[in-house]
Amino acid sequence: MKTITNAFKKVKHQCPLVQSITNYVVMNNTANALLSLGSSPIMAHAKSEMEDMVSIIGALVINIGTLDEYWVESMLLAAEKAKSLSKPIILDPVGAGATAYRNQTLTQLIQVGPNIIRGNASEIMSLASVNIHTKGVDSTNTSDEALDAGKRLSNETGAIVCISGEVDYIIHGEKTAKVKNGNPMMAKVTGMGCTASAIVGAFAAVEEDLFTATIAAMTVMGVAGDMAAEKSEGPGTLQLHFYDALYQLTPELLAEKAIVEIG
Amino acid sequence: MKTITNAFKKVKHQCPLVQSITNYVVMNNTANALLSLGSSPIMAHAKSEMEDMVSIIGALVINIGTLDEYWVESMLLAAEKAKSLSKPIILDPVGAGATAYRNQTLTQLIQVGPNIIRGNASEIMSLASVNIHTKGVDSTNTSDEALDAGKRLSNETGAIVCISGEVDYIIHGEKTAKVKNGNPMMAKVTGMGCTASAIVGAFAAVEEDLFTATIAAMTVMGVAGDMAAEKSEGPGTLQLHFYDALYQLTPELLAEKAIVEIG
Amino acid sequence: MKTITNAFKKVKHQCPLVQSITNYVVMNNTANALLSLGSSPIMAHAKSEMEDMVSIIGALVINIGTLDEYWVESMLLAAEKAKSLSKPIILDPVGAGATAYRNQTLTQLIQVGPNIIRGNASEIMSLASVNIHTKGVDSTNTSDEALDAGKRLSNETGAIVCISGEVDYIIHGEKTAKVKNGNPMMAKVTGMGCTASAIVGAFAAVEEDLFTATIAAMTVMGVAGDMAAEKSEGPGTLQLHFYDALYQLTPELLAEKAIVEIG
Repeated sequence: MKTITNAFKKVKHQCPLVQSITNYVVMNNTANALLSLGSSPIMAHAKSEMEDMVSIIGALVINIGTLDEYWVESMLLAAEKAKSLSKPIILDPVGAGATAYRNQTLTQLIQVGPNIIRGNASEIMSLASVNIHTKGVDSTNTSDEALDAGKRLSNETGAIVCISGEVDYIIHGEKTAKVKNGNPMMAKVTGMGCTASAIVGAFAAVEEDLFTATIAAMTVMGVAGDMAAEKSEGPGTLQLHFYDALYQLTPELLAEKAIVEIG
Repeated sequence: MKTITNAFKKVKHQCPLVQSITNYVVMNNTANALLSLGSSPIMAHAKSEMEDMVSIIGALVINIGTLDEYWVESMLLAAEKAKSLSKPIILDPVGAGATAYRNQTLTQLIQVGPNIIRGNASEIMSLASVNIHTKGVDSTNTSDEALDAGKRLSNETGAIVCISGEVDYIIHGEKTAKVKNGNPMMAKVTGMGCTASAIVGAFAAVEEDLFTATIAAMTVMGVAGDMAAEKSEGPGTLQLHFYDALYQLTPELLAEKAIVEIG
Repeated sequence: MKTITNAFKKVKHQCPLVQSITNYVVMNNTANALLSLGSSPIMAHAKSEMEDMVSIIGALVINIGTLDEYWVESMLLAAEKAKSLSKPIILDPVGAGATAYRNQTLTQLIQVGPNIIRGNASEIMSLASVNIHTKGVDSTNTSDEALDAGKRLSNETGAIVCISGEVDYIIHGEKTAKVKNGNPMMAKVTGMGCTASAIVGAFAAVEEDLFTATIAAMTVMGVAGDMAAEKSEGPGTLQLHFYDALYQLTPELLAEKAIVEIG
């Protein structure tokens, strides 16, 4: 737990600059969440400024939710620049599996070498079967299947894989952590997953141990969601109280409310 | 009324996938409204994935609010694919009449054959006079004039036409329905009309009778707006309570609060 | 004070049409703020309709937050058309200094001749040093330095320069005004600066004296922020209460709460 609260303190003190090349739907949410947390958001996608911009950031978050041909070029430019500067790259594979174009784009992005991949179970399973020669899935339930896909994806790519859902799984090779915070109503607010990826970006910018950074970020998401849900009558009010909770969150509150298993 | 509550139950049970090719301003609102209602939003516009995406959706909503040359090509691609698969198309002609480019784009989209067109009075009047050889307008007041334009547009295109305003009119050939729910403060929240079109999409995806689907969708909009307005001090809080109301709405509440005239 | 409340009454009565060519992150905020204030927002960026659109508006707001090559062409087209029609142009130089591309774009936009430039201290300082042959900065603290940069930028370009922050400075040549309203939590809501620029646009559309228009707009921002902060526990609720406050604001409330020094 101490590693989680320490990472949280670093975000609060260092105010990391996080660049999101993300989808139109969630840009506002993402920026508000980063600001409420104490981080500093940048949204920029022009090819003409990509290299300059990546030079000044702490972490790069790439989210393909509303990708198109221009944006994919920018994502690749940014990812390659970030890689060359050893800045952490977080990939959010929104809608993986929905279209051939998404799968092909994700394959290109994964080749650049993201440090962390965060998605929901179906996205991670889709990624694992597209990018890895599947050996068949023996799992007897969806949750095991997703977990298995996450491990294979992590082993193949070397990335930390985070599968978010009722329980969030953070996987790095043989290591797995579970975060049990969060509320089902969060799934009724658009872009909560995308917000999680952005917050992972903020932690990755300040915490060298990226496995810890990802666990800490998902814990902060879940705890802020729990705090917000207590005050909310629906997804509309939940979204707002979520930003307020991120703003009000202290290391003490985080330690008190976190339900995390690392093993 | 039973047809309306039945359509509402279908949305809640079937969680239809609605693709919105919509404007940047309202993407977040639209997605949140669909999620709160129990539908599942997709926002995608890349030409490279348009055909694949349209293959998996239940309905397509096209909104030209922030159109440009690339997006118009995508809208046409998507509409043609949806037409070929007999999936319902809802057109929201934002800003019809404001520029020649909007009018020309709307003419192209209407040629593909949208099933439902939803706009405000001035948009519908503009569409009717651009796309139809006007026979002169004899109406003595704006409301009659808009209604007349709606009827002509419906007859010429075969589409259901919905004119939203203080009273919402749903017109199909000689049939007209009125929904009298809703609150004037809704006009002070950006994208409430766009949200209405998206919700029409959710109903059109599950209810074969598209006239009923449109009436039911506008009733849900209006009732949720009424519920939200009771708790709100201005447009900011209204928007949130509106999502909460969509989330809390039950068939019973809907039946109790709906003010609909079909005739 | 009377000039400020008079400008406010003009906005409320004339419902000016303000076109924002702005960034994706804040489009929703900006539109909601303009609607709550009683103005009418237009967001449009297609080159194919730029000249038509600018013909019908009251003021043009250009914000380069998420610029790219296409959007920059549209911004220049719109600015040139607005200039030719003598409609006020407000420039929001988001991220000035962050990349060479932003600086180059800002130089092009400033050459067209914006009437008002609104940014934070670092943006204004960056603009002043890029666009003006610096004579060295003798100021002993950042605030003086920013003020000095604002004066130089105003003298060089002829524009009114507004530097927003804890205190907002409005500068035109030798004239300076200070607005002391506002709450630090506003900086934790994304796009509050962009919203300020849009509101300046609404005032510039109705108030010929653009120095007064800018002061009045910044006063309305600050007073609405003060009203919202009283009811808010964090940035999430602040954003909503801010729209409510804009909606509820009256000339009397404005006069009572404004803290403005003109000299």
